[in-house]
Amino acid sequence: MSGFLGDTRDLLRRTPDVLRALLTGLPDTWTTTPDVADGWRPRDVVGHLISGELDDWIPRTQRILEHGTAKAFDPFDRFAHVDRDADAPLDVLIERFAERREANLAKLDALATEGNLDRTGVHPSLGEVTLRELLATWAVHDLDHFAQIYTGLAGSHDADVGPWKAYLGILLRRDDPAAVPG
Amino acid sequence: MSGFLGDTRDLLRRTPDVLRALLTGLPDTWTTTPDVADGWRPRDVVGHLISGELDDWIPRTQRILEHGTAKAFDPFDRFAHVDRDADAPLDVLIERFAERREANLAKLDALATEGNLDRTGVHPSLGEVTLRELLATWAVHDLDHFAQIYTGLAGSHDADVGPWKAYLGILLRRDDPAAVPG
Repeated sequence: MSGFLGDTRDLLRRTPDVLRALLTGLPDTWTTTPDVADGWRPRDVVGHLISGELDDWIPRTQRILEHGTAKAFDPFDRFAHVDRDADAPLDVLIERFAERREANLAKLDALATEGNLDRTGVHPSLGEVTLRELLATWAVHDLDHFAQIYTGLAGSHDADVGPWKAYLGILLRRDDPAAVPG
Repeated sequence: MSGFLGDTRDLLRRTPDVLRALLTGLPDTWTTTPDVADGWRPRDVVGHLISGELDDWIPRTQRILEHGTAKAFDPFDRFAHVDRDADAPLDVLIERFAERREANLAKLDALATEGNLDRTGVHPSLGEVTLRELLATWAVHDLDHFAQIYTGLAGSHDADVGPWKAYLGILLRRDDPAAVPG
Protein backbone atom coordinates (compact mmCIF):
# COMPACT_ATOMS: atom_id res chain seq x y z
CA MET A 1 0.00 0.00 0.00
CA SER A 2 1.44 3.39 -0.96
CA GLY A 3 0.06 6.91 -1.36
CA PHE A 4 -1.82 8.85 1.28
CA LEU A 5 -3.62 5.89 2.81
CA GLY A 6 -0.55 3.67 3.04
CA ASP A 7 1.63 6.44 4.44
CA THR A 8 -0.99 7.39 7.03
CA ARG A 9 -1.45 3.78 8.08
CA ASP A 10 2.34 3.42 8.42
CA LEU A 11 2.41 6.19 11.03
CA LEU A 12 -0.66 4.90 12.86
CA ARG A 13 0.64 1.33 13.20
CA ARG A 14 3.81 2.57 14.90
CA THR A 15 2.17 4.27 17.86
CA PRO A 16 1.74 1.18 20.09
CA ASP A 17 5.40 0.20 19.65
CA VAL A 18 6.59 3.75 20.28
CA LEU A 19 4.49 3.90 23.47
CA ARG A 20 5.94 0.58 24.64
CA ALA A 21 9.54 1.56 23.84
CA LEU A 22 9.17 4.87 25.64
CA LEU A 23 6.92 4.09 28.60
CA THR A 24 6.44 0.41 29.45
CA GLY A 25 8.34 -0.21 32.68
CA LEU A 26 9.66 3.35 32.88
CA PRO A 27 10.12 4.33 36.56
CA ASP A 28 7.33 6.51 37.91
CA THR A 29 9.85 9.20 38.78
CA TRP A 30 9.37 10.01 35.07
CA THR A 31 5.68 9.35 34.50
CA THR A 32 3.64 11.06 37.21
CA THR A 33 3.99 14.70 36.16
CA PRO A 34 1.44 16.39 33.85
CA ASP A 35 2.53 18.38 30.80
CA VAL A 36 1.29 21.61 32.39
CA ALA A 37 -0.55 22.51 35.60
CA ASP A 38 -3.96 20.79 35.40
CA GLY A 39 -2.69 18.98 32.29
CA TRP A 40 -2.30 15.29 31.55
CA ARG A 41 0.20 12.71 32.75
CA PRO A 42 1.31 10.04 30.23
CA ARG A 43 -1.39 7.68 31.60
CA ASP A 44 -4.07 10.30 30.92
CA VAL A 45 -2.80 10.74 27.36
CA VAL A 46 -2.87 6.99 26.70
CA GLY A 47 -6.40 6.86 28.14
CA HIS A 48 -7.47 9.64 25.79
CA LEU A 49 -5.91 7.77 22.86
CA ILE A 50 -7.96 4.69 23.85
CA SER A 51 -11.10 6.87 23.78
CA GLY A 52 -10.22 7.91 20.24
CA GLU A 53 -9.98 4.27 19.18
CA LEU A 54 -13.32 3.50 20.83
CA ASP A 55 -15.42 6.51 19.86
CA ASP A 56 -13.76 8.69 17.25
CA TRP A 57 -11.76 7.62 14.20
CA ILE A 58 -13.41 4.40 13.02
CA PRO A 59 -16.97 5.30 14.09
CA ARG A 60 -16.59 8.58 12.16
CA THR A 61 -15.13 6.78 9.14
CA GLN A 62 -18.20 4.52 9.18
CA ARG A 63 -20.51 7.53 9.57
CA ILE A 64 -19.00 9.21 6.51
CA LEU A 65 -19.26 6.09 4.39
CA GLU A 66 -22.79 5.19 5.55
CA HIS A 67 -24.44 8.60 5.88
CA GLY A 68 -22.21 11.19 4.19
CA THR A 69 -23.32 14.67 5.22
CA ALA A 70 -26.84 13.53 6.14
CA LYS A 71 -25.94 12.65 9.75
CA ALA A 72 -23.30 14.58 11.71
CA PHE A 73 -20.67 12.80 13.82
CA ASP A 74 -21.53 12.14 17.45
CA PRO A 75 -19.65 14.55 19.75
CA PHE A 76 -16.42 13.13 21.23
CA ASP A 77 -15.85 13.13 25.01
CA ARG A 78 -12.25 14.26 25.64
CA PHE A 79 -12.46 13.16 29.27
CA ALA A 80 -14.04 9.70 28.93
CA HIS A 81 -10.82 8.14 30.24
CA VAL A 82 -10.93 9.85 33.61
CA ASP A 83 -13.40 7.45 35.22
CA ARG A 84 -13.00 4.52 32.83
CA ASP A 85 -9.25 4.11 33.33
CA ALA A 86 -8.85 5.26 36.91
CA ASP A 87 -7.71 1.87 38.23
CA ALA A 88 -5.50 0.65 35.37
CA PRO A 89 -1.70 0.98 35.49
CA LEU A 90 0.01 2.78 32.61
CA ASP A 91 1.49 -0.45 31.19
CA VAL A 92 -1.99 -2.04 31.06
CA LEU A 93 -3.42 1.01 29.33
CA ILE A 94 -0.71 0.81 26.67
CA GLU A 95 -1.64 -2.79 25.89
CA ARG A 96 -5.36 -1.93 25.81
CA PHE A 97 -4.56 0.84 23.37
CA ALA A 98 -2.39 -1.48 21.23
CA GLU A 99 -5.21 -4.02 20.91
CA ARG A 100 -7.72 -1.37 19.90
CA ARG A 101 -5.36 0.24 17.41
CA GLU A 102 -4.57 -3.09 15.75
CA ALA A 103 -8.26 -3.93 15.46
CA ASN A 104 -9.04 -0.49 14.08
CA LEU A 105 -6.33 -0.66 11.42
CA ALA A 106 -7.93 -3.90 10.22
CA LYS A 107 -11.26 -2.08 10.06
CA LEU A 108 -9.62 0.82 8.23
CA ASP A 109 -8.24 -1.61 5.64
CA ALA A 110 -11.76 -2.90 5.05
CA LEU A 111 -13.36 0.55 4.84
CA ALA A 112 -11.05 3.10 3.24
CA THR A 113 -9.63 3.19 -0.26
CA GLU A 114 -7.76 5.86 -2.18
CA GLY A 115 -10.99 6.18 -4.12
CA ASN A 116 -13.28 7.16 -1.23
CA LEU A 117 -10.99 9.63 0.58
CA ASP A 118 -12.90 12.62 -0.78
CA ARG A 119 -16.21 11.43 0.67
CA THR A 120 -17.60 14.00 3.10
CA GLY A 121 -19.23 14.06 6.50
CA VAL A 122 -20.23 16.68 9.06
CA HIS A 123 -18.32 17.44 12.26
CA PRO A 124 -20.65 18.79 14.98
CA SER A 125 -18.51 21.92 15.47
CA LEU A 126 -16.23 22.17 12.42
CA GLY A 127 -18.75 21.51 9.66
CA GLU A 128 -18.02 19.60 6.48
CA VAL A 129 -14.87 17.47 6.43
CA THR A 130 -13.49 14.74 4.19
CA LEU A 131 -12.46 11.20 5.02
CA ARG A 132 -8.92 12.19 3.99
CA GLU A 133 -8.92 14.99 6.58
CA LEU A 134 -10.29 12.63 9.24
CA LEU A 135 -7.53 10.08 8.64
CA ALA A 136 -4.76 12.71 8.49
CA THR A 137 -6.10 14.07 11.78
CA TRP A 138 -6.05 10.59 13.35
CA ALA A 139 -2.30 10.43 12.67
CA VAL A 140 -1.43 14.02 13.61
CA HIS A 141 -3.54 13.64 16.77
CA ASP A 142 -1.19 10.80 17.81
CA LEU A 143 1.79 13.10 17.20
CA ASP A 144 0.21 15.97 19.12
CA HIS A 145 -0.36 13.80 22.16
CA PHE A 146 3.12 12.29 21.99
CA ALA A 147 4.46 15.82 22.28
CA GLN A 148 2.30 16.15 25.42
CA ILE A 149 3.76 12.92 26.83
CA TYR A 150 7.31 14.18 26.25
CA THR A 151 6.50 17.46 27.96
CA GLY A 152 5.27 15.62 31.06
CA LEU A 153 8.33 13.36 31.11
CA ALA A 154 10.64 16.38 30.85
CA GLY A 155 8.64 18.29 33.46
CA SER A 156 9.24 15.53 35.98
CA HIS A 157 12.93 16.48 35.96
CA ASP A 158 12.55 20.25 35.75
CA ALA A 159 14.28 20.72 39.09
CA ASP A 160 17.19 18.40 38.23
CA VAL A 161 18.78 20.13 35.23
CA GLY A 162 19.99 23.23 37.10
CA PRO A 163 21.18 26.11 34.89
CA TRP A 164 20.77 24.01 31.71
CA LYS A 165 17.03 24.78 31.88
CA ALA A 166 17.89 27.98 29.99
CA TYR A 167 18.67 25.82 26.93
CA LEU A 168 15.75 23.37 27.20
CA GLY A 169 12.74 24.73 25.34
CA ILE A 170 10.56 21.81 26.41
CA LEU A 171 10.91 23.02 30.02
CA LEU A 172 10.79 26.75 29.30
CA ARG A 173 7.52 26.38 27.37
CA ARG A 174 5.87 24.72 30.40
CA ASP A 175 6.36 28.02 32.24
CA ASP A 176 5.69 30.33 29.26
CA PRO A 177 4.28 28.93 25.99
CA ALA A 178 5.83 31.80 24.03
CA ALA A 179 9.31 31.33 25.52
CA VAL A 180 11.00 29.33 22.75
CA PRO A 181 9.58 28.11 19.43
CA GLY A 182 9.53 24.35 19.26
CA MET B 1 20.18 -0.01 39.69
CA SER B 2 17.65 2.34 41.26
CA GLY B 3 17.63 5.96 42.36
CA PHE B 4 18.55 8.95 40.21
CA LEU B 5 21.26 7.25 38.21
CA GLY B 6 19.26 4.12 37.43
CA ASP B 7 16.14 6.08 36.51
CA THR B 8 18.11 8.43 34.26
CA ARG B 9 19.85 5.53 32.55
CA ASP B 10 16.47 3.85 32.01
CA LEU B 11 15.26 6.83 29.99
CA LEU B 12 18.53 7.17 28.05
CA ARG B 13 18.65 3.52 26.99
CA ARG B 14 15.18 3.76 25.43
CA THR B 15 15.95 6.49 22.92
CA PRO B 16 17.43 4.28 20.16
CA ASP B 17 14.44 1.93 20.26
CA VAL B 18 11.98 4.81 20.28
CA LEU B 19 13.72 6.36 17.26
CA ARG B 20 13.60 3.02 15.43
CA ALA B 21 9.93 2.40 16.25
CA LEU B 22 8.96 5.88 15.15
CA LEU B 23 11.22 6.61 12.18
CA THR B 24 13.02 3.61 10.65
CA GLY B 25 11.38 2.95 7.30
CA LEU B 26 8.81 5.71 7.73
CA PRO B 27 7.86 7.14 4.29
CA ASP B 28 9.58 10.42 3.51
CA THR B 29 6.20 12.09 3.06
CA TRP B 30 6.47 12.28 6.88
CA THR B 31 10.16 12.97 7.45
CA THR B 32 11.30 15.81 5.19
CA THR B 33 9.63 18.77 6.92
CA PRO B 34 11.45 20.82 9.60
CA ASP B 35 9.82 21.62 12.93
CA VAL B 36 9.66 25.32 12.04
CA ALA B 37 10.92 27.44 9.13
CA ASP B 38 14.73 27.14 9.14
CA GLY B 39 14.34 24.42 11.78
CA TRP B 40 15.41 20.79 11.79
CA ARG B 41 14.02 17.73 10.02
CA PRO B 42 14.09 14.42 11.93
CA ARG B 43 17.42 13.55 10.24
CA ASP B 44 18.95 16.82 11.51
CA VAL B 45 17.75 16.06 15.03
CA VAL B 46 19.25 12.56 14.97
CA GLY B 47 22.51 14.05 13.67
CA HIS B 48 22.54 16.51 16.54
CA LEU B 49 21.92 13.67 19.01
CA ILE B 50 24.94 11.86 17.51
CA SER B 51 27.02 14.99 18.12
CA GLY B 52 25.94 14.92 21.76
CA GLU B 53 27.14 11.32 22.09
CA LEU B 54 30.47 12.20 20.46
CA ASP B 55 31.31 15.53 22.07
CA ASP B 56 29.04 16.40 24.97
CA TRP B 57 27.72 14.08 27.67
CA ILE B 58 30.49 11.58 28.28
CA PRO B 59 33.41 13.93 27.55
CA ARG B 60 31.91 16.38 30.06
CA THR B 61 31.35 13.61 32.61
CA GLN B 62 35.02 12.74 32.26
CA ARG B 63 36.02 16.40 32.56
CA ILE B 64 34.11 16.75 35.83
CA LEU B 65 35.62 13.61 37.32
CA GLU B 66 39.18 14.36 36.15
CA HIS B 67 39.41 18.13 36.54
CA GLY B 68 36.43 19.31 38.61
CA THR B 69 36.12 23.07 38.31
CA ALA B 70 39.78 23.55 37.32
CA LYS B 71 39.13 23.11 33.58
CA ALA B 72 35.89 24.25 31.92
CA PHE B 73 34.04 22.05 29.41
CA ASP B 74 34.94 22.48 25.75
CA PRO B 75 32.20 24.40 23.88
CA PHE B 76 29.69 22.17 22.04
CA ASP B 77 29.02 22.68 18.31
CA ARG B 78 25.24 22.50 17.75
CA PHE B 79 25.72 22.26 14.01
CA ALA B 80 28.48 19.65 13.73
CA HIS B 81 26.05 17.27 12.03
CA VAL B 82 25.37 19.50 9.03
CA ASP B 83 28.52 18.57 7.10
CA ARG B 84 29.32 15.31 8.87
CA ASP B 85 25.98 13.62 8.15
CA ALA B 86 25.05 15.20 4.83
CA ASP B 87 25.24 11.96 2.85
CA ALA B 88 23.75 9.47 5.34
CA PRO B 89 20.10 8.37 5.16
CA LEU B 90 17.96 8.79 8.26
CA ASP B 91 17.86 5.03 8.98
CA VAL B 92 21.68 4.88 8.93
CA LEU B 93 21.92 7.86 11.26
CA ILE B 94 19.58 6.15 13.73
CA GLU B 95 21.84 3.08 13.84
CA ARG B 96 24.96 5.25 14.23
CA PHE B 97 23.26 6.98 17.13
CA ALA B 98 22.22 3.66 18.68
CA GLU B 99 25.80 2.35 18.62
CA ARG B 100 27.15 5.52 20.22
CA ARG B 101 24.45 5.61 22.89
CA GLU B 102 25.04 1.97 23.84
CA ALA B 103 28.78 2.54 24.10
CA ASN B 104 28.26 5.70 26.14
CA LEU B 105 25.93 3.99 28.61
CA ALA B 106 28.67 1.43 29.23
CA LYS B 107 31.06 4.31 29.87
CA LEU B 108 28.51 5.94 32.16
CA ASP B 109 28.27 2.74 34.17
CA ALA B 110 32.03 2.80 34.64
CA LEU B 111 32.21 6.48 35.56
CA ALA B 112 29.17 7.60 37.53
CA THR B 113 27.97 6.47 40.93
CA GLU B 114 25.30 7.80 43.27
CA GLY B 115 28.27 8.95 45.37
CA ASN B 116 29.88 11.24 42.79
CA LEU B 117 26.76 12.96 41.41
CA ASP B 118 27.47 16.13 43.39
CA ARG B 119 30.92 16.60 41.87
CA THR B 120 31.16 19.90 40.04
CA GLY B 121 32.50 21.23 36.76
CA VAL B 122 32.34 24.48 34.82
CA HIS B 123 30.16 25.07 31.75
CA PRO B 124 31.70 27.70 29.42
CA SER B 125 28.52 29.81 29.47
CA LEU B 126 26.42 28.58 32.41
CA GLY B 127 29.13 28.41 35.07
CA GLU B 128 29.30 25.80 37.83
CA VAL B 129 27.19 22.68 37.33
CA THR B 130 27.01 19.25 38.97
CA LEU B 131 27.37 15.82 37.42
CA ARG B 132 23.75 15.17 38.48
CA GLU B 133 22.61 18.21 36.48
CA LEU B 134 24.65 17.12 33.46
CA LEU B 135 23.09 13.64 33.45
CA ALA B 136 19.55 14.94 33.99
CA THR B 137 20.14 17.32 31.08
CA TRP B 138 21.35 14.46 28.89
CA ALA B 139 17.97 12.75 29.37
CA VAL B 140 15.78 15.86 29.10
CA HIS B 141 17.74 16.92 26.01
CA ASP B 142 16.60 13.66 24.35
CA LEU B 143 12.99 14.50 25.27
CA ASP B 144 13.32 18.08 24.01
CA HIS B 145 14.54 16.90 20.63
CA PHE B 146 11.89 14.19 20.38
CA ALA B 147 9.31 16.94 20.71
CA GLN B 148 11.07 18.65 17.78
CA ILE B 149 10.87 15.44 15.72
CA TYR B 150 7.13 15.13 16.40
CA THR B 151 6.59 18.74 15.38
CA GLY B 152 8.29 18.15 12.05
CA LEU B 153 6.31 14.95 11.44
CA ALA B 154 3.06 16.77 12.19
CA GLY B 155 4.06 19.76 10.08
CA SER B 156 4.47 17.50 7.04
CA HIS B 157 0.70 16.97 7.11
CA ASP B 158 -0.37 20.49 8.07
CA ALA B 159 -2.27 20.90 4.80
CA ASP B 160 -4.06 17.54 5.10
CA VAL B 161 -6.06 17.94 8.31
CA GLY B 162 -8.42 20.64 7.04
CA PRO B 163 -10.52 22.40 9.71
CA TRP B 164 -9.22 20.04 12.43
CA LYS B 165 -6.06 22.16 12.56
CA ALA B 166 -8.00 24.38 15.00
CA TYR B 167 -7.77 21.52 17.56
CA LEU B 168 -4.18 20.46 16.92
CA GLY B 169 -1.83 22.48 19.12
CA ILE B 170 1.25 20.85 17.60
CA LEU B 171 0.33 22.52 14.27
CA LEU B 172 -0.93 25.80 15.70
CA ARG B 173 2.30 26.32 17.64
CA ARG B 174 4.36 26.02 14.41
CA ASP B 175 2.59 29.20 13.24
CA ASP B 176 2.44 30.95 16.61
CA PRO B 177 4.39 29.59 19.61
CA ALA B 178 1.95 31.23 22.03
CA ALA B 179 -1.14 29.78 20.35
CA VAL B 180 -1.83 26.82 22.62
CA PRO B 181 0.07 25.64 25.70
CA GLY B 182 1.57 22.21 25.20
